[in-house]
Amino acid sequence: MEEAFTPEDRAALYRIIESRRDVRAFRSDPVPNEVLFRILTAAHHGPSVGFMQPWNFLVIRDPGTKRFVKAMCEAENGRAAMNYAGDRATLYRSLKLEGIEEAPINLCVTCDRLRSGPHVLGRNTIVDTDLYSTCCAIENLWLAARAEGVGVGWVSILNNDDLRQILGIPAEILPVAYLCIGYANEFSPIPDLERRGWADRLPLQDLIFVERWGQKV
Amino acid sequence: MEEAFTPEDRAALYRIIESRRDVRAFRSDPVPNEVLFRILTAAHHGPSVGFMQPWNFLVIRDPGTKRFVKAMCEAENGRAAMNYAGDRATLYRSLKLEGIEEAPINLCVTCDRLRSGPHVLGRNTIVDTDLYSTCCAIENLWLAARAEGVGVGWVSILNNDDLRQILGIPAEILPVAYLCIGYANEFSPIPDLERRGWADRLPLQDLIFVERWGQKV
Repeated sequence: MEEAFTPEDRAALYRIIESRRDVRAFRSDPVPNEVLFRILTAAHHGPSVGFMQPWNFLVIRDPGTKRFVKAMCEAENGRAAMNYAGDRATLYRSLKLEGIEEAPINLCVTCDRLRSGPHVLGRNTIVDTDLYSTCCAIENLWLAARAEGVGVGWVSILNNDDLRQILGIPAEILPVAYLCIGYANEFSPIPDLERRGWADRLPLQDLIFVERWGQKV
Repeated sequence: MEEAFTPEDRAALYRIIESRRDVRAFRSDPVPNEVLFRILTAAHHGPSVGFMQPWNFLVIRDPGTKRFVKAMCEAENGRAAMNYAGDRATLYRSLKLEGIEEAPINLCVTCDRLRSGPHVLGRNTIVDTDLYSTCCAIENLWLAARAEGVGVGWVSILNNDDLRQILGIPAEILPVAYLCIGYANEFSPIPDLERRGWADRLPLQDLIFVERWGQKV
């Protein structure tokens, strides 16, 4: 597989990366199983520390389950909203942050922290590398979905213990991401939070240091 | 940016994802600055909780710094090797796990856990979502590098406190990844750890559950 990629291949990747969005509004038409399987295959080809592949993919379509998750999210979001005051609180409450019930698929991506035994190659000093691996897999999934025209929204305003209970996930398994998946109404040209004036994109140059922390080019 | 992607675009993405490798052997020729900048731009377009963009990119080319990091890695790896016995220990010691000194660029990707203030949208219940964001950015970088013919190897056998000291990173900043970057001698058709018999790829079907944990299709 000594693949060489063409300028067109590279351009496609960069366009996919730049047009990936956190999607919160979904069409109701189903995502075909073969599309879902391609997206999950992309995730499964993510890097993992010691080739640990600590992930599982729990595919949820049941409206009852979604309803439970949605209720939990609303409760947590009520608490989260209290962190803001004034205009910021008004703006916060006006943001649509999830599409749990509209999205035809909800997907819980988990990390089995004990997979492949007590010693995982490369995971002796930094034990969270299994979580890091799972997140890299999730980004593969997100990009694959974008290329398929499928939107993904990551819902992080959740309580993991409640989520474990709803989905029957054992205590030793960490739910890393709860994703809403479905064809998107639109992929906004810029991130929603930027469009709505919540936050700006930082200039990349400000984030790059050379040789030592804080040292600019 | 209502982009639609063609079957060719999708195929390019899937080939990039499937041929991405953890690279530990590098050619010495430099990576041009414009290529590095494209790769970092891809990272900077990663998703982030509350559009927090908590990452920094510390670019290291100084051989002296690499030598310090390499020495620290060797010390930690000596300890890690003691976790294995017999044939497994022999195999472990025969694996090339990093290319710190050969790689023209070392890159430390960090997470500023305090960026954008005390309340980050979406980060009230699961505080590690800033780390998750940083890892998604790293996967973007890794794929962009692959498409550019540039290899990336993630060195995780490190001590973060030592790394902070070597690079002048403040205590409140977490080094998430230490990456070796350079043109690759080769991109192996299968992961090194699979080729050398350390671990096998798990069947994806075994990792998928429906509706509830443990429930198969």
